[in-house]
Amino acid sequence: NIPFETSPQAVRLYNLYNHWAMQATTYFFIFVDLSLAVFEDPAVYPLPFLATSLAEVLCLLVFFGRLVHFAKVTPRNVFWKDTKNICIVIAILGTLIDLIIYGALKISNINSVRWSRVLRPVFLINFAESHQIRKVFRSIRNTLPEITYVFLLFMFSVLMFSLMALKLFGDRNLQTVEGSPYFTNYLEIVFDMYVLVTTANSPDIMIPAYDISWLYSLFFITYVVIHTYLFMSVFLAVVYNNYKKHLKNEICKLAYMKRRKMVEAFNILKVKEGPEFVVKEAQWKELVKRVAPDISTSHRELLLRVSDDEQKGYVDKKSFVRLADLLNIQVIAMKIQAHPLENWMPRVYNSAASQCLRSMVKHRGFVWTYDVIILINAIFIALDERNPLISYAEWVFLSLYILEILLKVYTYEPRAFFAKTQFWNWFDTSIIIAALVATVLNTLLKSTSQYNSQQVLDIVFILRVLRLLRIVDSIKRFRVIMTTLINVVPTMLTFGELVLVVYYMFAIIGMELFQGKIQFFNMNSTAPLALVCGNPALKDSQFAQGKYCVNNFNDLLSSFIVLTELTVVNQWHTLANGFVLVTHQAAKLYFMAFHIVVVIMIVNIFTAFILEAFYVEYSLEKSDVESAIERKIQELG
Amino acid sequence: NIPFETSPQAVRLYNLYNHWAMQATTYFFIFVDLSLAVFEDPAVYPLPFLATSLAEVLCLLVFFGRLVHFAKVTPRNVFWKDTKNICIVIAILGTLIDLIIYGALKISNINSVRWSRVLRPVFLINFAESHQIRKVFRSIRNTLPEITYVFLLFMFSVLMFSLMALKLFGDRNLQTVEGSPYFTNYLEIVFDMYVLVTTANSPDIMIPAYDISWLYSLFFITYVVIHTYLFMSVFLAVVYNNYKKHLKNEICKLAYMKRRKMVEAFNILKVKEGPEFVVKEAQWKELVKRVAPDISTSHRELLLRVSDDEQKGYVDKKSFVRLADLLNIQVIAMKIQAHPLENWMPRVYNSAASQCLRSMVKHRGFVWTYDVIILINAIFIALDERNPLISYAEWVFLSLYILEILLKVYTYEPRAFFAKTQFWNWFDTSIIIAALVATVLNTLLKSTSQYNSQQVLDIVFILRVLRLLRIVDSIKRFRVIMTTLINVVPTMLTFGELVLVVYYMFAIIGMELFQGKIQFFNMNSTAPLALVCGNPALKDSQFAQGKYCVNNFNDLLSSFIVLTELTVVNQWHTLANGFVLVTHQAAKLYFMAFHIVVVIMIVNIFTAFILEAFYVEYSLEKSDVESAIERKIQELG
Repeated sequence: NIPFETSPQAVRLYNLYNHWAMQATTYFFIFVDLSLAVFEDPAVYPLPFLATSLAEVLCLLVFFGRLVHFAKVTPRNVFWKDTKNICIVIAILGTLIDLIIYGALKISNINSVRWSRVLRPVFLINFAESHQIRKVFRSIRNTLPEITYVFLLFMFSVLMFSLMALKLFGDRNLQTVEGSPYFTNYLEIVFDMYVLVTTANSPDIMIPAYDISWLYSLFFITYVVIHTYLFMSVFLAVVYNNYKKHLKNEICKLAYMKRRKMVEAFNILKVKEGPEFVVKEAQWKELVKRVAPDISTSHRELLLRVSDDEQKGYVDKKSFVRLADLLNIQVIAMKIQAHPLENWMPRVYNSAASQCLRSMVKHRGFVWTYDVIILINAIFIALDERNPLISYAEWVFLSLYILEILLKVYTYEPRAFFAKTQFWNWFDTSIIIAALVATVLNTLLKSTSQYNSQQVLDIVFILRVLRLLRIVDSIKRFRVIMTTLINVVPTMLTFGELVLVVYYMFAIIGMELFQGKIQFFNMNSTAPLALVCGNPALKDSQFAQGKYCVNNFNDLLSSFIVLTELTVVNQWHTLANGFVLVTHQAAKLYFMAFHIVVVIMIVNIFTAFILEAFYVEYSLEKSDVESAIERKIQELG
Repeated sequence: NIPFETSPQAVRLYNLYNHWAMQATTYFFIFVDLSLAVFEDPAVYPLPFLATSLAEVLCLLVFFGRLVHFAKVTPRNVFWKDTKNICIVIAILGTLIDLIIYGALKISNINSVRWSRVLRPVFLINFAESHQIRKVFRSIRNTLPEITYVFLLFMFSVLMFSLMALKLFGDRNLQTVEGSPYFTNYLEIVFDMYVLVTTANSPDIMIPAYDISWLYSLFFITYVVIHTYLFMSVFLAVVYNNYKKHLKNEICKLAYMKRRKMVEAFNILKVKEGPEFVVKEAQWKELVKRVAPDISTSHRELLLRVSDDEQKGYVDKKSFVRLADLLNIQVIAMKIQAHPLENWMPRVYNSAASQCLRSMVKHRGFVWTYDVIILINAIFIALDERNPLISYAEWVFLSLYILEILLKVYTYEPRAFFAKTQFWNWFDTSIIIAALVATVLNTLLKSTSQYNSQQVLDIVFILRVLRLLRIVDSIKRFRVIMTTLINVVPTMLTFGELVLVVYYMFAIIGMELFQGKIQFFNMNSTAPLALVCGNPALKDSQFAQGKYCVNNFNDLLSSFIVLTELTVVNQWHTLANGFVLVTHQAAKLYFMAFHIVVVIMIVNIFTAFILEAFYVEYSLEKSDVESAIERKIQELG
C-alpha cells in the first residue's frame, strides 16, 4: 500500500527493503534495543553503562539506516506526511540527546533519569511489518473520545458516592479490620471506592459499616451494581462497538483500494473484444505467473477456469478484478499419493498381515483403546512418583504412545499425516518426542551423577500431563471449540505485542520510581529486615504480611510479573499500598493509571476480539469467491 | 398469544382474568409467599410455625384458584400441554405434602427440612404477566448445551493444570503464607486453581512458588491467561451469541404471529373494491376505537391518514396489517398551551417585569449560574458539618434550589415541565422536596428532643449529594450516556427478578445447610467466642481474622447479602473456607455451584444484555413505520 517511485532503480531498492534478511535484521536490532533494559541499571544481569550505551547507539544507527533506505523509495512529500516516520526520527533524536546528557552527568557522578527508554517500543510499533499492531493503536485512538466521556461520568459518580460515604461514615469513629480509621479522609475514600469498583477490597471495605446495620450494606451493593456491573459493561460495550465499527471501516477501505488497483491493472492490459474490453488468456496467465510464481500449473488452470467461466479465451473486467481474492484462497492439492513404503517394498506393504494391521489402525476401536490408555495414564501420573513400579509404567506408556505414532505413519501417508492443517498430529508427535528426550536425559543424569535435575524433571512432568490433552481431540464438540481457540491464537499475538509495549513502558517508569525501595530476601535469610522487605516503612503492612516482597520493581523481569499481577486485579490495592508506604501517596496515581490503561482498555479490547472471533465462527458462511471455486472444482470433478 | 375459547362467557372470564385487580392480588400473594422466609425459622422476625403455614396454605389456595380460572378460559388440551401450568400444579402439591410431613414431624418433636421452600420462586416465574422472565429462562435453557461443552473443556483444563501443579510443587515441602502445606492434596489444588480462575486468591497462591524461582510464575500466568481471560471471554461469547440468536428468533416469531392475526382480521372485515379487497374507512375507525379506546380523535385521524395514504376512503391489506405497529408508537401531542397563570391573571403574567424574569430563566446563563451553585454546594458538603455557618449555608442552598424550580415552573408550562419524558425535572423536584422534608424533620427532632435521628440524617446526606448529579444534565455528551443507561433500567428489572429467583433458592438451601453455624456478636460483645464467630472451628482462620462473622446464613437478609458478596467474587474462597471449616469439605460444592450459576451464567447474560442495548443504541435507525408517521406529520404540518 506504500506509494513508491517506479524507476527500475527504485524498484530494486524497494525489493531490497522488503527482503526477508533486511526485515530480520531490523527485528533483531529492535529486540536488542528492547532487551537492553535487562542489562541496564536496575539490571537482571548488570553490564557497564559504556557497553549498553554503545549497543544502543548501534541499534539507533541501524534504525536510522533503515529509515533512510525507506526514504529513498518513497516520494519526499509522502515520507514526511507519514506519522510513523516522524515518530521514529523523534525517538532516535530523543534517545541520542538523553544518552549524551546521562553520560555527561554520569562522568561528573550525578545520577539522572534515563527517560528516553520509555520511547523504545516506538521502534517496535513503527517498524513492524505487520500492520496489525498499528491498527490496534488506531482503534484505541478512535475509541478514546467516547471512552473518555464514559470514564468522566464514571469518575463523577465515584466522587459522588465517596462524598456520601464521607458524610455517612466519617463521624462515627469506626475502624477497619486493621484498626485504622474508617472513611475519614476524602482522598483515601476515593481510592478505596475506586478499588471497590475492581472488587479487590470487597467485602472487607463494607464489613465495619455492615456490622452497625445491614442497611449500610445496601449503600455498597448499590455502588457495586452501578460501577462494577453497569459501568464496566458499558466500557466493554463502547470498546466492542468501536472495534466492530472500526474493523468494518478498515476492511471496506482495504477492499476499495484493492479494487482500484485491480481496475488500474486491467486498464493497462485491456484489449477490445467485441463490445467490451477484456484481458487475453495468455496475458492473464503471464500476469498470474509473475504475481504468484509458486502456485502450481494445475492450480493456475483452475483459477483461469473460474475467471473465464465460459471458456471464451479471455477474461472480462468483472472476473479480472476478482483475481486478487482468488489468489488469496488456499487450494489444498489433495494428491492421493501412494505410501512411500508401498513404492519401496510393495510386496511387504500389501501383504495380508500389513493390510490387517492398517485396517486395525483405521478402526474406531484403535482411537478408543488409546483414549482408555490416556485415562489410565492420568491415574498413574496422579499416583506417587517414588514407587519404582510407577516409574517403570511411565516407560510403558511412553513406548505405547511412540508405537501409536509409528503405526499411524505406517498406515497413513506421512506427508498427509504431517500436513500443515493437521494440528493434532503435530502436537502429539512433538510432545511425545520431547517427552522421550527429556525422560532419557533425566534418567541419564540420575544414573551418572545421582543428581536429579529439577528443571528437566519439571519439563518431564509438564509434558506428561500435556499428553492428556489429546483426549479432547476424540470428542467432536470439544474439537470444534478447540479449533476456534487455536484459530484465535495467531491474532492473539498482536495483543501480545500490544501488552508487551504497554508493559515495557510502565515497567521502565516503575523501575525509575520504585527500584530498590522493596527488597526480597531468601526464605532462609536472617537479615534483620527480611520480614519487612528491607524497608522499615512496611512494618505491619498487609504487603509485608502477605509476604509480597518478591513483587518489586528491582529489575525488568520482576516488574513484568508485578504488572501481570496488577492486570489480574486481585490484591492490587495491597501491592499499590505497599509501594505507597515506601514512597509517597502520589504513587497511587501510577497504579490507577495502569489499571485504567490495561484493565479498562486493553483487557476489554481482548474480550471484544474474542467476542467477535466467536461471533464470526458461529455465523460463518463461505464467501462468494470461495463458493465459486468450490463450484468449479465440483464441475471439473 | 394464549389461544382461548370464543364464547361470550369465556371472553368475560378472560377479561376478568386479565383485570388489573386480579393480577395485583396474584402478585401480592406471590410476594407474601416469598416473604414467608423472613418469618420462618431461621427468621429475621420469628413467627410460630402455625401462623406461617396457615399463610402459606392461603397463598396456595389463591394460586390454585388462579390456575383454575385460567383453566376455564383455555381449551383443556392446550392447558395441559403448557409446562408452566404443570410446574404450578407440581409446586402446589409438593408444598402441601411438605407442609403436612413437616407439621406431623414437628408435633412429634422431630425437626426436618422444609425442602419445598425452594419451589416458591416457581410461582413468581410462572404467574408473572410479563413474559420477559420466562424468556430469559428459555434463553438460559437454550444456552445450556453449548455452555456445558465449553465448561467441560474448561474443567478438563483446570484438572490438567492441577495435576501439573501437584507434580511440580507437591514434593517440595512448601508452605503457604498461612503456614499450611502448599499444593499437596489434589482435590484442594483443584479448588485453589478454580478459585484462581476467579482471580480471588491471586497473587497469594503463586507467591510460595515464585519465591523459589520466577520460572514458576510463568506456570500461573499461563494458567490465568488461558482460564481467566480466554475461557471467561469464551463463556461471555457463547452467552452473547445465543442471546442474539435467541432474541432474533423470539422477535421473528412474534412478528410472524402478529402478522397472521392481522391477516385473519383483515379477511373478516374485507370488502371487494375494484380489483382488490380492502377495509372501509368507517369499519377501520370502528375497529381502532374498539381496540384502543383511549387514543384521541386527532391521533386516530393521523393514523388513518398514514394508512390511507391517498385518501381513497379505504385501507388496503398492506396498510391494514401495519396497524398493530402503528398503534404501538407513542405520538406525543405537543399542545402548545398557554401558561395557567396567563389565563388567571394575564396582566401580571405578561407585564414587563414578568417577561424579563422569564427571558432570564430561559437564558443559558441561568443554567450556568446554577451549575456554579452546585459546585460550590459540593465543596460545602465536603466541609465539616458541625460548623454552624455551614449548616446555615445548607438552608441557603436548599432555598436556592426551590427558587429555581419555582422559577422554571413559572416560566415553562407546568404540564410540559412535568411531562412523562422529562426525567430530569422529575428527578430534581423529587430530590429537592424530599431533602426539604428530611431537613425540616431533622431540625425539628433536634430542637425538640436534642436527639439527632441518625436515619433521617443519613437520608439528608444522601439526598444532598444526589443533588449534585444534576450537573450531568448540563453536559450534552453525559446526557446521551445517561439516557441510554436510564432506558436500560426497565429491562434490567427482569434481571432483578431473575437474580431474586436464583438468590432465593440458594438462600433457602444455604440456610438449611449453614444456619447457626456462624454467629455474629456485637462489636462490644464480651462473649468468649466473639472473635471466632461463636465457633471454635474458625480459630486462626482467615474468615475470623477478616471479621467476617456478620456474613452468615442465619436469616434471609444475611443470606442475601452473603450471596451478593459471593457474586462480587472477591474473597469468596475465604467465605467458602469459613463455612467449610464449620461443616464439611463438601460445602465447597455449594459455593462452586453458586459461582457457576450466578457469575458464569447470569452475570454474563447481564453483560450480553448491556452490550446489545448499547449496540442497538449506537446503530439505532428509525424503523419504517415510525418514519412513515413522521413523514405524514410533516406533510400535514
